[in-house]
Amino acid sequence: MRFDIISANTKILECSLFHGMISRAVKKGLIEIYIHNLRDYAEGKYKQIDDIPYGGGSGMILKPEPVFKCVSKLKEKTCYDEVIYFSPQGEKLTQKTVNDTSLLGNLILICGHYKGIDERIIAKLVTKEVSIGDYVLSCGDIPAYVFIDSVTRVIPGALGDGESAITDTFQVETGFDHPQYTRPEVYKRLRVPKVLLSGNHREIKIWREKKALSKYKKYLKNNKN
Amino acid sequence: MRFDIISANTKILECSLFHGMISRAVKKGLIEIYIHNLRDYAEGKYKQIDDIPYGGGSGMILKPEPVFKCVSKLKEKTCYDEVIYFSPQGEKLTQKTVNDTSLLGNLILICGHYKGIDERIIAKLVTKEVSIGDYVLSCGDIPAYVFIDSVTRVIPGALGDGESAITDTFQVETGFDHPQYTRPEVYKRLRVPKVLLSGNHREIKIWREKKALSKYKKYLKNNKN
Repeated sequence: MRFDIISANTKILECSLFHGMISRAVKKGLIEIYIHNLRDYAEGKYKQIDDIPYGGGSGMILKPEPVFKCVSKLKEKTCYDEVIYFSPQGEKLTQKTVNDTSLLGNLILICGHYKGIDERIIAKLVTKEVSIGDYVLSCGDIPAYVFIDSVTRVIPGALGDGESAITDTFQVETGFDHPQYTRPEVYKRLRVPKVLLSGNHREIKIWREKKALSKYKKYLKNNKN
Repeated sequence: MRFDIISANTKILECSLFHGMISRAVKKGLIEIYIHNLRDYAEGKYKQIDDIPYGGGSGMILKPEPVFKCVSKLKEKTCYDEVIYFSPQGEKLTQKTVNDTSLLGNLILICGHYKGIDERIIAKLVTKEVSIGDYVLSCGDIPAYVFIDSVTRVIPGALGDGESAITDTFQVETGFDHPQYTRPEVYKRLRVPKVLLSGNHREIKIWREKKALSKYKKYLKNNKN
């Protein structure tokens, strides 16, 4: 799987993507990541990538030309399944979208910046708008990071432990993981539930299912509107 | 505002937080960020921070002791408004939560890792569980990044342009920003809408409100389930 990221502030992803699980997936050859600096596609002495909005208003808007140039250069060599732009009006990212996306081949991710991007980019280049949640961030690089992490970790082999991703929250039937405990058995007078020490696999399974369900209830309670 | 982040993989945040808007807010003295490495609070020769789950299963679970030690050391010197843990069953992050959080003083953010954390940490230390969306990520450092960015950008002075945050998507009445256009007026035969060049502020305002509403409709259509 290949991600081509178009960004106005490449430093954020250049460092964060090269740690942890994502960097291991790159080293294992499971994914390829290329970060393209918009400024390399800008013209003029000042390599201007943004400008003030037509009609007035605050903030700076990403200009159309550098994005069009970058996308068209990428498309000369590679076929892309989607050109994704991260925006609040996009399709909300869910684990289902994540799973479906992990089956695709090549993606272009356009990261917005400043107050927004020129609408012509969305109208002509973007095939899918994705939102990671109902809140505003300082730039599209952060949702791109969330997106790449979530998609990469479901690619078989990306996690050290092959079983981990399929037993996740949002993947199992009840929707939620059960509480987890590790050593020590007693810490600050807090005991690990006895059933987990029993060795009785049937009992453990029942207990975990019940607890997963109560985590799900907690989720519903926390998000009742 | 002060963020104390407890992490098992500090490299991700150590680099990503020190670019862009967040780093400028730190330099301006608007926020303070301290990243605490769980390993510094672990005992034994191997500074073990995780262990296998009681009752069996895949993945590694963060041990309780290092987290308890770190939180208790932090609390010796500072009073905290909340101890936040990022988890799928948490309260979904929304712009309202972001705005409310920006009025708080000191926060501890606990970043999970591996398959989860020992439930005693959640039961005894955590005051609030927060979820950034219905998908799974490789570690809690990524939602912590999203959280800090969203909260910081609404703190007055964090954005270069003071007006930007209050006219955002999710802040304005219609809920959505209007399309934006910048120079050139015509690009690849695509024209900037005439009204934006008219100089008629009333007309521009009406057009923008109409368009913001249609962005909102697009959002509803994209997220109809």
